[in-house]
Amino acid sequence: MSGDGAGPGDAEENLRPLRTDLRPVVEAVREAGAAAFVAVGDRFDDDLRFLTRFSGPDRPYALVVVPDTESGDRAGRAVLCAPALFREQAEREFVAAARDADGEFHDGIGREIRTEGVGDHAGERAAGVVDDLADGANAATEGDGPTVLAPASIPHDAAVYLERADNDLTSTDAVADARARKTPAEVDRLRRVQRAAVAGMARAEAVLAESGVTDTTAEKSKRDSRPPLRWEGEPLTTERLRREVNQVLAARGVRDAGNTVIGAGPSAADLHYVGDDPIRPGETVLLDISPRGPDGYYGDVTRTFVVDGDGGWERRAYVAVEAAREAALDEVEPGVPAKTVHGEAAAELAAYGFDPNADEGEAGFTHGTGHGVGVSLHEGPSLSGAGELRPGHVVTVEPGVYDPEIGGVRLEDLILVTDDGYEILAEYPFGIVPGIDSA
Amino acid sequence: MSGDGAGPGDAEENLRPLRTDLRPVVEAVREAGAAAFVAVGDRFDDDLRFLTRFSGPDRPYALVVVPDTESGDRAGRAVLCAPALFREQAEREFVAAARDADGEFHDGIGREIRTEGVGDHAGERAAGVVDDLADGANAATEGDGPTVLAPASIPHDAAVYLERADNDLTSTDAVADARARKTPAEVDRLRRVQRAAVAGMARAEAVLAESGVTDTTAEKSKRDSRPPLRWEGEPLTTERLRREVNQVLAARGVRDAGNTVIGAGPSAADLHYVGDDPIRPGETVLLDISPRGPDGYYGDVTRTFVVDGDGGWERRAYVAVEAAREAALDEVEPGVPAKTVHGEAAAELAAYGFDPNADEGEAGFTHGTGHGVGVSLHEGPSLSGAGELRPGHVVTVEPGVYDPEIGGVRLEDLILVTDDGYEILAEYPFGIVPGIDSA
Repeated sequence: MSGDGAGPGDAEENLRPLRTDLRPVVEAVREAGAAAFVAVGDRFDDDLRFLTRFSGPDRPYALVVVPDTESGDRAGRAVLCAPALFREQAEREFVAAARDADGEFHDGIGREIRTEGVGDHAGERAAGVVDDLADGANAATEGDGPTVLAPASIPHDAAVYLERADNDLTSTDAVADARARKTPAEVDRLRRVQRAAVAGMARAEAVLAESGVTDTTAEKSKRDSRPPLRWEGEPLTTERLRREVNQVLAARGVRDAGNTVIGAGPSAADLHYVGDDPIRPGETVLLDISPRGPDGYYGDVTRTFVVDGDGGWERRAYVAVEAAREAALDEVEPGVPAKTVHGEAAAELAAYGFDPNADEGEAGFTHGTGHGVGVSLHEGPSLSGAGELRPGHVVTVEPGVYDPEIGGVRLEDLILVTDDGYEILAEYPFGIVPGIDSA
Repeated sequence: MSGDGAGPGDAEENLRPLRTDLRPVVEAVREAGAAAFVAVGDRFDDDLRFLTRFSGPDRPYALVVVPDTESGDRAGRAVLCAPALFREQAEREFVAAARDADGEFHDGIGREIRTEGVGDHAGERAAGVVDDLADGANAATEGDGPTVLAPASIPHDAAVYLERADNDLTSTDAVADARARKTPAEVDRLRRVQRAAVAGMARAEAVLAESGVTDTTAEKSKRDSRPPLRWEGEPLTTERLRREVNQVLAARGVRDAGNTVIGAGPSAADLHYVGDDPIRPGETVLLDISPRGPDGYYGDVTRTFVVDGDGGWERRAYVAVEAAREAALDEVEPGVPAKTVHGEAAAELAAYGFDPNADEGEAGFTHGTGHGVGVSLHEGPSLSGAGELRPGHVVTVEPGVYDPEIGGVRLEDLILVTDDGYEILAEYPFGIVPGIDSA
């Protein structure tokens, strides 16, 4: 059971320190003439994870960021209202990790933990901190209550507590913007988790390569009537294959996060299939592996294989998707409108005779060509959305074509937009026939 | 790599169908004189997971439940506003799974998927459905806008969309109440994931039992100066041990969910330690394993071991915690105030000389004796909170004592409150010395 590249070694890999620069948040507060920025959420709130690096509890906590209104030598202050039982962890992850070797906060923003009022709602505690720290910060709106910036999706009860304390809430995109462009330390983590994802893919490919076809005389085009592949003496299913992949992810110290999507035949056309389906010869086996690393960053890789295929639909689909992938990647460089990348992939698929604008449940290309990946599996930028590519963007490139009655082919890599093009974060070979050497 | 009880077999285990009875939600709407219940969230929203059984996307979707105001044969209607790319999955998980063999909805609540307005915010889509379905449902407040029940923590932007559409939001506890008492189908899932957690524990215990002490002549009470245990030729750390546990969880088809907490010595006193720490002889090794199963239900088990201990603090702590566990379990039956369970555990620890009301960072018992477990790892009822135990409650019983300078001992099981007492969902033996036979 000690698997596949596991070991303490890669936990100690030389990763640059992961620290969030809170100055863009302070700047957004200043620009809005606001008194503070407030976020409230639990450990599943990725904005809070990004802003605090606190891998907190499954009940709400709060972050308050205020500009420094005195003439101090710090640009601002950040207060984490933590549950008492998490004080030590919060001190370690939010405060200590943000200090330079000389003890100064790396971005000039002071950080502290408060556990006063731990029985109260996190929104009420945040309102108390705003009242305490932001006093006079909002002189421009003297007479009215202070303006407080918050993510639009802040929990409603937290918003109500803040409003009752006479704060006027305004939403901000500052956090989403800060998240979209990755620092080198974030790229280190994305690369590490993507390497684990690729190791999981290698395991899946090896299992498929080792799997046996029992009906060697069958008419290959009759997929439905062929018996499932067998592996280690038992029928191979998507669930068995998923467990093999997830063991490799666990051995590498990352979580499958419920995102090991494996479909076979028609279930490969279902974009998020996590059920149990027999895997038959001739069918497309689509594996989309998106684990989450210990610092919260995701990986995302997809490959498609066919064991003992007949070279029909799936072969044509594979060739088209490979070409779409190349066409998309050819566009990637800073300054290019993100939409161009999707447009090129779609045009290439259309040239191969696949509908580039199919609705879900129809045959063709049913989704966008890619999305940003970070502490959320889906974040900005979208390759179908507005805006231009910038250095530091980390996006998937994942064209695919589907036929709900046959299957699906998708090929996906995770790429970093660099100063002059792109870098694939962890390469994995292509090929529709699973190779035994891949593991 | 094909591990430890893995295989397609247990995926096909005979589990009762998992279906949520939406009648309590409809009843809450009627009692409040409201027009509808609305929930908005993403796949990380456990209320929505429970209500819909939809393992949806990481962007917001919405559920609207309305009572049937016509004289129809259904008690109400439930509409899931899904992302278009998830329509097929939503139909399968939310609609088809809620039907009896005869095609009727099991609770008399009709279910449907809507994908209109997929570009709009889920709150806006929910407001549209309320407007469409709840027309006239709220005649009592004619002239005012209709009242809509929603969880208190509904995203603020969704709440604003609903309010702009002239709905008056009121919070409800109906969902939390419905979640606290488990159906037999839910207990099936909790038991299955707890079995996987226990299998992970057995793996950890076996690794500890196999680990070697290199300083056999050392003075045992000097823990800090002893070299780490060695396992398979390398120093044993909490991270190595975690990966071994998580591989077993993956082989069993459950996710570690980032919840495999392992501390050794002082880090065992940190309640949520997921870092990398060498494991030394004589130290308490605390393992708290809380995986999540494919249907979203969690397990939760904790054991504590010491390799080559000196029988000092950790032995006294272990004896006290075992006694506290027995004292707590002795109280568990329907009708007992939940607080009594915590009170008995605390009293027992006090009798052994440990502070039963220690704050975090102090020596003693720093937390509550238990919490409900379901589609959230922490849910109702709390064994330190108000209310009485009821059949169907599933709670942890987990007394523990900690000394930040030495370590921590906690013993935790997951129990089901039955009609006349309790049942431990998956038993695991006790013993501070790891045994090789456990694996």
